[in-house]
Amino acid sequence: MVVVMEERASEEQIQRVIAHLVEHQFDVHRSTDQLRSMLGAVGGVRSFDARLIEVMDGVQEVARITEPYKLASRTFRPENTTVPLGEVRVGGDEVIVMAGPCSVETEEQIGAAAAAVKNAGAKVLRGGAFKPRSSPYSFQGLGEEALRLMRAAADAEGLKVVSEVMDVSQIELVSRYADILQVGARNMQNYSLLRELGRSGTPILLKRGISANIEEWLLSAEYLLSGGNPNVVLCERGIRTFENYTRNTMDISAVPVVQKLSHLPIIADPSHGTGLRDKVAPMARAAIAAGADGLIIEVHPDPDHALSDGAQSIFPAQFDRLMAELRIIAPAIGRSICLEPAAYRGWGT
Amino acid sequence: MVVVMEERASEEQIQRVIAHLVEHQFDVHRSTDQLRSMLGAVGGVRSFDARLIEVMDGVQEVARITEPYKLASRTFRPENTTVPLGEVRVGGDEVIVMAGPCSVETEEQIGAAAAAVKNAGAKVLRGGAFKPRSSPYSFQGLGEEALRLMRAAADAEGLKVVSEVMDVSQIELVSRYADILQVGARNMQNYSLLRELGRSGTPILLKRGISANIEEWLLSAEYLLSGGNPNVVLCERGIRTFENYTRNTMDISAVPVVQKLSHLPIIADPSHGTGLRDKVAPMARAAIAAGADGLIIEVHPDPDHALSDGAQSIFPAQFDRLMAELRIIAPAIGRSICLEPAAYRGWGT
Amino acid sequence: MVVVMEERASEEQIQRVIAHLVEHQFDVHRSTDQLRSMLGAVGGVRSFDARLIEVMDGVQEVARITEPYKLASRTFRPENTTVPLGEVRVGGDEVIVMAGPCSVETEEQIGAAAAAVKNAGAKVLRGGAFKPRSSPYSFQGLGEEALRLMRAAADAEGLKVVSEVMDVSQIELVSRYADILQVGARNMQNYSLLRELGRSGTPILLKRGISANIEEWLLSAEYLLSGGNPNVVLCERGIRTFENYTRNTMDISAVPVVQKLSHLPIIADPSHGTGLRDKVAPMARAAIAAGADGLIIEVHPDPDHALSDGAQSIFPAQFDRLMAELRIIAPAIGRSICLEPAAYRGWGT
Amino acid sequence: MVVVMEERASEEQIQRVIAHLVEHQFDVHRSTDQLRSMLGAVGGVRSFDARLIEVMDGVQEVARITEPYKLASRTFRPENTTVPLGEVRVGGDEVIVMAGPCSVETEEQIGAAAAAVKNAGAKVLRGGAFKPRSSPYSFQGLGEEALRLMRAAADAEGLKVVSEVMDVSQIELVSRYADILQVGARNMQNYSLLRELGRSGTPILLKRGISANIEEWLLSAEYLLSGGNPNVVLCERGIRTFENYTRNTMDISAVPVVQKLSHLPIIADPSHGTGLRDKVAPMARAAIAAGADGLIIEVHPDPDHALSDGAQSIFPAQFDRLMAELRIIAPAIGRSICLEPAAYRGWGT
Repeated sequence: MVVVMEERASEEQIQRVIAHLVEHQFDVHRSTDQLRSMLGAVGGVRSFDARLIEVMDGVQEVARITEPYKLASRTFRPENTTVPLGEVRVGGDEVIVMAGPCSVETEEQIGAAAAAVKNAGAKVLRGGAFKPRSSPYSFQGLGEEALRLMRAAADAEGLKVVSEVMDVSQIELVSRYADILQVGARNMQNYSLLRELGRSGTPILLKRGISANIEEWLLSAEYLLSGGNPNVVLCERGIRTFENYTRNTMDISAVPVVQKLSHLPIIADPSHGTGLRDKVAPMARAAIAAGADGLIIEVHPDPDHALSDGAQSIFPAQFDRLMAELRIIAPAIGRSICLEPAAYRGWGT
Repeated sequence: MVVVMEERASEEQIQRVIAHLVEHQFDVHRSTDQLRSMLGAVGGVRSFDARLIEVMDGVQEVARITEPYKLASRTFRPENTTVPLGEVRVGGDEVIVMAGPCSVETEEQIGAAAAAVKNAGAKVLRGGAFKPRSSPYSFQGLGEEALRLMRAAADAEGLKVVSEVMDVSQIELVSRYADILQVGARNMQNYSLLRELGRSGTPILLKRGISANIEEWLLSAEYLLSGGNPNVVLCERGIRTFENYTRNTMDISAVPVVQKLSHLPIIADPSHGTGLRDKVAPMARAAIAAGADGLIIEVHPDPDHALSDGAQSIFPAQFDRLMAELRIIAPAIGRSICLEPAAYRGWGT
Repeated sequence: MVVVMEERASEEQIQRVIAHLVEHQFDVHRSTDQLRSMLGAVGGVRSFDARLIEVMDGVQEVARITEPYKLASRTFRPENTTVPLGEVRVGGDEVIVMAGPCSVETEEQIGAAAAAVKNAGAKVLRGGAFKPRSSPYSFQGLGEEALRLMRAAADAEGLKVVSEVMDVSQIELVSRYADILQVGARNMQNYSLLRELGRSGTPILLKRGISANIEEWLLSAEYLLSGGNPNVVLCERGIRTFENYTRNTMDISAVPVVQKLSHLPIIADPSHGTGLRDKVAPMARAAIAAGADGLIIEVHPDPDHALSDGAQSIFPAQFDRLMAELRIIAPAIGRSICLEPAAYRGWGT
Repeated sequence: MVVVMEERASEEQIQRVIAHLVEHQFDVHRSTDQLRSMLGAVGGVRSFDARLIEVMDGVQEVARITEPYKLASRTFRPENTTVPLGEVRVGGDEVIVMAGPCSVETEEQIGAAAAAVKNAGAKVLRGGAFKPRSSPYSFQGLGEEALRLMRAAADAEGLKVVSEVMDVSQIELVSRYADILQVGARNMQNYSLLRELGRSGTPILLKRGISANIEEWLLSAEYLLSGGNPNVVLCERGIRTFENYTRNTMDISAVPVVQKLSHLPIIADPSHGTGLRDKVAPMARAAIAAGADGLIIEVHPDPDHALSDGAQSIFPAQFDRLMAELRIIAPAIGRSICLEPAAYRGWGT
């Protein structure tokens, strides 16, 4: 932390600031030029609130210098982390695609979805059992029955399973069925939930909150890592801006930014990132071109009759075509993407 | 909902949209001018996702017309709701001020805070027992001990108690000590928590999420109301914008907007709304001048040594002065504010 | 500026950063703790782009410390500036209200508006001659004829005149009729215009751009001041956020923030700040309660038939009532507001 | 426009709304269900301000239905527009890349930049002569001398020229040297400038304002088109959001959104979109993968000593590599990109 004193700050004011910093375990280095004093403070408690100095008399400006997270930082761990879901590895050379319906609705629906996404090259099946809905009058999910159906469908196709956990009380249940637990955007700062998941061994997919900046997002990852769970995958899914043609504004630049600041893998969710079916493929291509480690996409066998988010779910044929496009793009950044012979034959013939 | 078809929409496309609407229980009224068809759709399921129509072929634009909440709407209940905390009523003619430290730290601290805010005219004591902190390395609150100390301090001064509940598992405990339960900004869309609080009889203080628009905020209130709990107080506490001189941008205009759309009382939190001690009083005055039903303010006997949020906590003497200013402002909008003789003597002499 | 080097930065990288800073005329002070080097850099060219250091190898973070403006800063000039419009002074103890229609339409309209706002206590008549309209199909203003009519109406009532100048080519013309020239939000960073107005002697009302942060706004004021024009009044008029119930989100906290950072007077525009007639009075009261030096408000004798912005213009009777409310509020912050006997009699009888 | 009346709206209130609409040349169609009346209004003046209806008594909500622009709309012109710069065509199958330094500094600098970008496959040379700088103390550009040097450098390499025009007074001058005139983000709503450029025959590159939504951007294009200039290229360059790790948040989804709403070509500017050198290539790849018709990129022979924006300028070798990556990506969306044999040999050997 660096504290710049006002030109007219008195010696007494400067001493009071120094005393306050020392009290919070900082080493303080003072330098003075012809105009003003500057205090460099290192060490100190990690969670120190810099605003406390900012409101002191005689202080002009305070610059917090070091990032407030540690385990999530690339400074702490320079090499990339890969997160294993069985034999599937997120964060390696291969781009990993997770796909499936917003909500699990019936055995037929999830079975058809699993077959379609597997055929096109997806490695993980997504599907909601407990749904966070902004209206209390909306469909809230099938609960454990959904998890059971999804696991069976995934096993039949050799897929892994990702599903959301909304509450501490659901962790044990969802962990029994899923290979990776999703923390939704609205729960990115649900610290009770994060703390509990940090104690779990199951990998976590941590979505970015719609109003979370990248530092806050990495601090939430820090909750998971500091609890002892090293298997964290980040997911960009759009932030809230003034532009409301799209549901959110997908922050594609978060991909290279996170890759510089952190060693954790990062994937992208173009379905929630845009909220509109015909924008999913362009934004999925953009995310991979920018270097994302994977995608999570809503695919539904019959989107027009989906019980939730049908408007942003794509048809299996659109997903096939998208995967083919991604196979062209991935090599531009030295990545590969699963080439299922069946899928390849299926598209464009 | 109104659906505008493209000029070149075919009759078949129009019929397909009508069929989809009818399938979801809408009555559809079609009108056609020289250029295009317009479909007015009323009834229908409340949670219908208008984007499903937006993505259909031939559709140019869809306008959702009616608000998605009902019990929270002034259309449903034209007269103002007042929420009783014992003999204190939030939403009546009197402006209600809640004040106290961010976190409860010691018996002395909360006792001194209670005496100070009571003396100046506050009616409710605030204080955190469980703290949602963005860093896992920050002080996380004293838990039940904090609740016990705060209740005792409040009782000694004849104050009511407000405290935050972060998780379903804390509801029962906090309800034993507090008169009104706060749902923090980060939990505004924690639907598990909202659903459970809807079943509780205790009044709820529902803070606005930093990225929640007013409609989403009222939908979260709808979760509480539809669960059977009529005692909901809303609290504006700043939204996230590009301006970061202040921690958040306090949306003072939310006060008159909410008062038009809803019958629920609304108060303001200038401490979190600005994050800076010297901005608290100006924004508190602004909120009351705009018509807010009350305030919640962080006051600490020794802010420079507070364990959390000291930089945005004001000194008791600043709080005294602010209350005196509010007593001048409130009558401009036909409101009163508690006039404690002790407080009045204490200030300005 | 403070530069923090990475832990693993080589001595060569550090030397390269120091050389770069010295090349740009900085004095560099290096301090090193057990972990890393920190470089304090003072002096240097005012416009130095700190990102140039940020992209150098071995650099972890750069904190720019001092504000990039000088003449607009309270550090440079501690006492408040008051801007004279003849005998009217903006920035003194008296709250100054500017009011009138969005556009000047006819002699009758501007005459009626002038009489009404004068009667209620306004000191300055506002009215547009050249209108910046987002649609090329909207009414664009009457031009010089509008200026002539407005000057006559103002003179008849003893009012000053404020009007917008959209382009360098209009400065000479508008200056002949107006006492203070408005720079609209969309032109806040039109540097050709600012540079030319800096050479003018006429006072300037500088509106904040809807996406300008406070630093950028003060930098635009710096353009005016550094050109030699000391008479600058700032005007908060709402920023663009995700909330779109209101046209903009009025940033009331900008009032105390600007008053801390700068010596320039600041007024508020609740008409453009909200865009909705029934929100104008609450936000006008809020701005004064927060400490604003004045207001600029759209008042129209017949808002429903206004050629522009009728929806955010208030009726003369609403303006009367608002002025009466402001007379109650102003003393709370030690300010007065014009008390016209005529106005006082006019309201509430 | 559709007007929904309140349930309790009186017949008199409804008639007053109808009369108001008819007065503004709307045809009104009234439909009533068991609860309320709905008024569909078509025709009417294009610039009608819907808020005027919103503030009338008895009105619950107003939905404006049709876009306020016409000539820029794909409804008006279904096929893509291509904009010719001599034999170069923006908006066709070929991805067009514009590149060069932020500012023209010397003959050597612009000559080296022109050779480098030509060699890698760019078709247009960019360079600033008049610079809009947020600080009055920053380098403001070389003016006409810059234009002369840039034209000579471009001619020597067979490149077209793009340069910014900041003011009406510069149009004639810049048009003598440049093949396409850039309107900067800060001038997107400088209507004096837009109106004058609409009368010009020279193609225009219209950058999106940092706080402009897509509708406002297309309305600014409408100013140009309605003035008679059909040659408009749009350019996404980042919007302002709460995330400030990057200078702006590049809204990649604007590419497919604009392509749906409008027939005009759209390119992307990853240099200003991110403000950071190491984020330029990922975002350039993302924009092309999303379907952009081209790019404009800051390339400088010696970025560390650039007089402006050096931190976001890339080195020629980085530009070579980026162009090679784009050649892999473009075919994924059925596009080609210039393959200069020289460039191809130059990279990777």
